[in-house]
Amino acid sequence: MSVNRIYLDWNATAKLLPEARKAVLDGLDLIGNASSVHREGRAARARIEAARREVGAMVGAEPQHIIFFSGATEAANYILTPDFRMGRSAISLGALYVSGIEHPAVHEGGRFPAEMTTEIGISRDGLVDLADLEAKLAAHDPSAGLPMVAIMLVNNETGIIQPVEAAAKIVHAHGGLLVVDAVQAAGRIPVDIEALGADFLILSSHKIGGPKGVGALVSRGETLMPAPLVRGGGQEKGHHSGTENLPGILGFGAAAKSASLEIETRNARIEALRDRLERGMRDAAADVEIYGQGLRRVANTCFFTLPGMKAETGQIAFDLEGVSLSAGSACSSGKVGESHVLKAMGRDPDIGALRISLGWETNDDDVSQAIDAFAKIAGRRKLDGQAA
Amino acid sequence: MSVNRIYLDWNATAKLLPEARKAVLDGLDLIGNASSVHREGRAARARIEAARREVGAMVGAEPQHIIFFSGATEAANYILTPDFRMGRSAISLGALYVSGIEHPAVHEGGRFPAEMTTEIGISRDGLVDLADLEAKLAAHDPSAGLPMVAIMLVNNETGIIQPVEAAAKIVHAHGGLLVVDAVQAAGRIPVDIEALGADFLILSSHKIGGPKGVGALVSRGETLMPAPLVRGGGQEKGHHSGTENLPGILGFGAAAKSASLEIETRNARIEALRDRLERGMRDAAADVEIYGQGLRRVANTCFFTLPGMKAETGQIAFDLEGVSLSAGSACSSGKVGESHVLKAMGRDPDIGALRISLGWETNDDDVSQAIDAFAKIAGRRKLDGQAA
Repeated sequence: MSVNRIYLDWNATAKLLPEARKAVLDGLDLIGNASSVHREGRAARARIEAARREVGAMVGAEPQHIIFFSGATEAANYILTPDFRMGRSAISLGALYVSGIEHPAVHEGGRFPAEMTTEIGISRDGLVDLADLEAKLAAHDPSAGLPMVAIMLVNNETGIIQPVEAAAKIVHAHGGLLVVDAVQAAGRIPVDIEALGADFLILSSHKIGGPKGVGALVSRGETLMPAPLVRGGGQEKGHHSGTENLPGILGFGAAAKSASLEIETRNARIEALRDRLERGMRDAAADVEIYGQGLRRVANTCFFTLPGMKAETGQIAFDLEGVSLSAGSACSSGKVGESHVLKAMGRDPDIGALRISLGWETNDDDVSQAIDAFAKIAGRRKLDGQAA
Repeated sequence: MSVNRIYLDWNATAKLLPEARKAVLDGLDLIGNASSVHREGRAARARIEAARREVGAMVGAEPQHIIFFSGATEAANYILTPDFRMGRSAISLGALYVSGIEHPAVHEGGRFPAEMTTEIGISRDGLVDLADLEAKLAAHDPSAGLPMVAIMLVNNETGIIQPVEAAAKIVHAHGGLLVVDAVQAAGRIPVDIEALGADFLILSSHKIGGPKGVGALVSRGETLMPAPLVRGGGQEKGHHSGTENLPGILGFGAAAKSASLEIETRNARIEALRDRLERGMRDAAADVEIYGQGLRRVANTCFFTLPGMKAETGQIAFDLEGVSLSAGSACSSGKVGESHVLKAMGRDPDIGALRISLGWETNDDDVSQAIDAFAKIAGRRKLDGQAA
């Protein structure tokens, strides 16, 4: 008997939106290198600049402040460096402060050596501890260089929205630069670089329904920029060398445009599905712990612990029931490690937690199947408990 | 009157092969992050590993020695660093020696500081000067660390095949590491990492008919590897973090497979076209200088100077005649700079040179139109000369 598969791991990667698929095909079929000066090159260039405007519009930024990279991870490694420049002058930053729940792409600290990196604490609820941020910046020695702070807007595992506006005020009061990983926020909540007070935003295409292989770094200005990570032909105004990924960038632009237009209707629909899912889960197992229910969360994410069932066991059980979900973030060649997010929240990482994440194609039937699978697995767990 | 456009700038970027297009579409339509452990993730992973085998087979390398990057430029920046590792031990290289005709992605020296980089001379014909390489390595102080040498297999502007096997013997006699940019060689001449004696090869997908946005670094072993350039989730065994570009990698694999199967027939056909083109050019302008005609060249490239006509003027004239070709490499946001290759060859970079490069779709009609355009432009030049 074959099981109907349902994909509920949209925070790991979203399905490609039809409009993004069309734009990728356009990019595949366009001849020409966007850096060539002949007509084909200029046509490719014009399409890239249009995509840049669409990505900028999604986050309230000027197109000239969008730099395309091969993904959010590369964008993070580009911006997380002590080696900055103001025009031709070199400026060294003094330290990096990262929240304990950052994605590994940011948490690893990019080009900052480990000894220059300090972690900011996380509350038991999963929120960045602003008092700890304030204390650490107050203790920062400015003579070593300005501090850089990295705080994500939406956590990839819990879906909890972080207090970035408040953090920005603290960071700027201490003369620091704020880098905001908006990978899981874009397309799910309105993101505006000015309103947030972020100096830099990190974006990923494939998390918003665009193709894999492309991301962006958004800046509020151009005064203070890092030394390039990848050097060569000087593309992207020298910030990122290498032939432009034309199909990827066009697909990203189309997904950004769709996110700008559809954000409210898409997320209202998804939130109703998620709420029904969580009611069904609680009906099937009253002891399920769903994280962040009382806090501001994105509409598509449900992060939970089922007492008595390890996350890695649960993930396999759901997979066998046809439900794809995840335990932690997808990386490190598929190994299921302990969740550093749960650990940062002071929770028991041994039992772990599972993440169900919904997307534009998720429907009522998917949610019903997920509830049924959850009930079956939760019920079996009880029987196991009695047998033990 | 509209002009029929013909694209003769395949060294800047090739048209996507039909089989690569199909593989990209497969990758776009596959759901799942290749690092996820659920069934969709594992299916994506299996396809990536198949592509890795295809890319390895193209260059005689083991699949586990292929690391995927966002392009050849990123692969070059990854490998060009003094910061190597042997297991957990750090090993510092002492200097980088780059040939004067390397692509900017290599010529810029990656993560080597400028003061650690030395240029190897180039003959007036366009060949790497092996005596100069030998002399420079003999003068290298090994106590500073092993030397790294970067010599491309085929020059992107001239199409001339470089004496890499001989260079490898010299480099290894001095205990050095040889990095070979094989971007313009793959698919055009047989490339075998063992036969070449290269320690590392750099490859690009879009130059062999795959999609843009993906490239690879090939190693002969795994003993001595550089520190990662991009850190985060630990993908590609920690050498390159970030969600795998599934459609890009699958397309690259398909293009590599096609290159392995079709290299002889495809290039024999292209060589005949290129030879007819060059005969036609010489018939139209006996004074045209075509570089590398007496040397081993790839079949698809014709690099030439038309006395009395600046390359940038020529490029615009050809563009108006519907022929897309290039003056130097496509980079730095479309600016037409002087050719550093011509300069390294000791030629006058002021007049410059133009490059016609053919590909799998080029046909007899294209060549006829190119010859006609050339004759027209060369004739006008003579009239201009008389008028001046």
